[in-house]
Amino acid sequence: MLKRYLLAPGPTPVPPEVLLAMARPMVHHRAPEFDPIFQEVREGLKWLYQTRNDVLILASSGTGGMEGAVSNFLSPGDKALVVNGGKFGERWGKLCKTFGAQVTELKVEWGRSVDPQQVAEALKKDPAIKAVYVQASETSTGVSHDVKALGQIVKGCPETILVVDAITALGVFDLKTDDWGLDVVITGSQKALMLPPGLAFVSVSDKAWQSADKAKNTAFYFNFKRERENQTKNQTAYTPAVSMIIGLQEVIKMMKAEGLDQVFARQTQMAHALREGAKAAGLTIFAKDMPSDAVTAINAPEGVDGQAIYKSLRVKYGITAAGGQDQLKGKVFRISTMGYLDRFDIITALAAMEMVLKGLGHPITLGSGVARAQALLMAE
Amino acid sequence: MLKRYLLAPGPTPVPPEVLLAMARPMVHHRAPEFDPIFQEVREGLKWLYQTRNDVLILASSGTGGMEGAVSNFLSPGDKALVVNGGKFGERWGKLCKTFGAQVTELKVEWGRSVDPQQVAEALKKDPAIKAVYVQASETSTGVSHDVKALGQIVKGCPETILVVDAITALGVFDLKTDDWGLDVVITGSQKALMLPPGLAFVSVSDKAWQSADKAKNTAFYFNFKRERENQTKNQTAYTPAVSMIIGLQEVIKMMKAEGLDQVFARQTQMAHALREGAKAAGLTIFAKDMPSDAVTAINAPEGVDGQAIYKSLRVKYGITAAGGQDQLKGKVFRISTMGYLDRFDIITALAAMEMVLKGLGHPITLGSGVARAQALLMAE
Repeated sequence: MLKRYLLAPGPTPVPPEVLLAMARPMVHHRAPEFDPIFQEVREGLKWLYQTRNDVLILASSGTGGMEGAVSNFLSPGDKALVVNGGKFGERWGKLCKTFGAQVTELKVEWGRSVDPQQVAEALKKDPAIKAVYVQASETSTGVSHDVKALGQIVKGCPETILVVDAITALGVFDLKTDDWGLDVVITGSQKALMLPPGLAFVSVSDKAWQSADKAKNTAFYFNFKRERENQTKNQTAYTPAVSMIIGLQEVIKMMKAEGLDQVFARQTQMAHALREGAKAAGLTIFAKDMPSDAVTAINAPEGVDGQAIYKSLRVKYGITAAGGQDQLKGKVFRISTMGYLDRFDIITALAAMEMVLKGLGHPITLGSGVARAQALLMAE
Repeated sequence: MLKRYLLAPGPTPVPPEVLLAMARPMVHHRAPEFDPIFQEVREGLKWLYQTRNDVLILASSGTGGMEGAVSNFLSPGDKALVVNGGKFGERWGKLCKTFGAQVTELKVEWGRSVDPQQVAEALKKDPAIKAVYVQASETSTGVSHDVKALGQIVKGCPETILVVDAITALGVFDLKTDDWGLDVVITGSQKALMLPPGLAFVSVSDKAWQSADKAKNTAFYFNFKRERENQTKNQTAYTPAVSMIIGLQEVIKMMKAEGLDQVFARQTQMAHALREGAKAAGLTIFAKDMPSDAVTAINAPEGVDGQAIYKSLRVKYGITAAGGQDQLKGKVFRISTMGYLDRFDIITALAAMEMVLKGLGHPITLGSGVARAQALLMAE
């Protein structure tokens, strides 16, 4: 018997209350029963996003939201600035090119956060850049970019919008969509929102809507204007993922009951305990700047294959974490602390990590990382 | 947000597969769809009980099975020998008295196993004793009684049957119902069988049926003969707890897939790691003889209230363990390792125990017990 533990950066564990809500009999999305549910979810998303604008709800994975954040705002030939510090930064570049944009890539060393000054200089050099694309949390490296600082910079550029992939950020740490001037913010259901994969969410600022008005829109399924028109009638353009939205209603109830500040504090506490525990066990964290509280990339110790760590966690201990991608393959393993996790999940992650490393012949003191996390996670 | 961890000696965690099975649409218990389910469950119980006899299935808690094991075999005035080494031994005495039996109590110091020789002597002294009542695992003290040795003794007494409360034993450690001569063996659904509370199970040997034939039976709901008659027609005398039986079908599938020896080995490994971890953290185990692998009573350290430990586990850490009962109140806390638990539940229990004790001002080295358990629970 091997219990399964989900500590990968999405999908994350779904709380039983949410699973039960999603198992309720199907409701028709044009029937009156769906109205108050959808209304409540729309209001809840504004609260979660800290925005006065509507948050579009799409039946897709997060990448669908990213695609729409390109196709609705850029016309072929438009200029885009892409911050690329990992696999998901790279994806922004691919998307922009797919839709015919002229892409300037601001390459950031993996493990580092972008220097906001570099973005400011690029925009100064070319004020015709229509949009800056960035991750709030780069899942492949476990690093955050300072989107608050970027918001300040882009606010001063009348022709440019800031598009933030917050897929592993929203609901993990503070993101003040309106106050920070984040024009387009995308997230997905299967991360901090504790739902299965299947929903993407996108907020759009007034400035971004004006930009969209000027663009030659090539989007059909991910057509943001059409979604907005429908949403003002408390509808979606196409069939919504009904049970997911019912699950989201439950998630928002849970998050409201806990309070947004408390959610952020818990997520920070978990990630901090994991990082400090790993360090106490003699390991090092891959992030050189601003580690993301969503996911921690831990360097495989000298002489140990990171993929072997990740595989042993899964096969021997039932724990699904993640390995490294591309240039990090074999060099790191990644543990997510997003969403429905509490302190004993962190203890489990560290205990298993120690057992795996010892099993792979690495000299590690069992309990050393756990003890540090215990001290940090003690209740008052 | 506080996740809930169930580490009390019943109810124990129910596996998701079983919860899902129990959530299937209701089946009528006299409809043909129920036939193969009930047949499979009956066969599965024989396998689990290691018996050729039918195992009766009652819609009640374990105590219902205990009551029937008195009322079906003892007439008013009949003599019973009760082994009383804890709260559940005491319950045998109360039940026997309720049904008018003449009770001889063999009092065993809490924390000790009964000396089988004492039972042999009592039976020698009074061969008219109709039944010996004992626990295979005394939940209040975390101690096992040697029912294999008792079976040997009672086999030699033609007028006496051995009645075993195996409520926290069956499915935890080896109990060879037929081979060991355990005439009546009772268990409940909410322990090692990983189901919610609501079902009791009772096996009855040929010798016990003969004894029942001679008794002035006062049972109506817990009438074993009536249940047996119905069970030969693949029925129950009264309405069975249908969804529980569907859940049991799933449980038996899971246990068969794991294998009975492997189930016992895992349960022993978990209990052993918990005991050794507690000792490595400087604590002591209450059991002086044969500790039960179902539940471990750990002595509260000098100057720390056992009830405070149990309460702090629940309130601060979301862990439902158990306190001490009666004379042990405040002196021990109890952690169950029965059923659907794996190594990280043991790690969680020990980590939380250390954090609670440190929080209560007891000098304990965080991680000390966890490290010992990690070493014992490492996968090959």
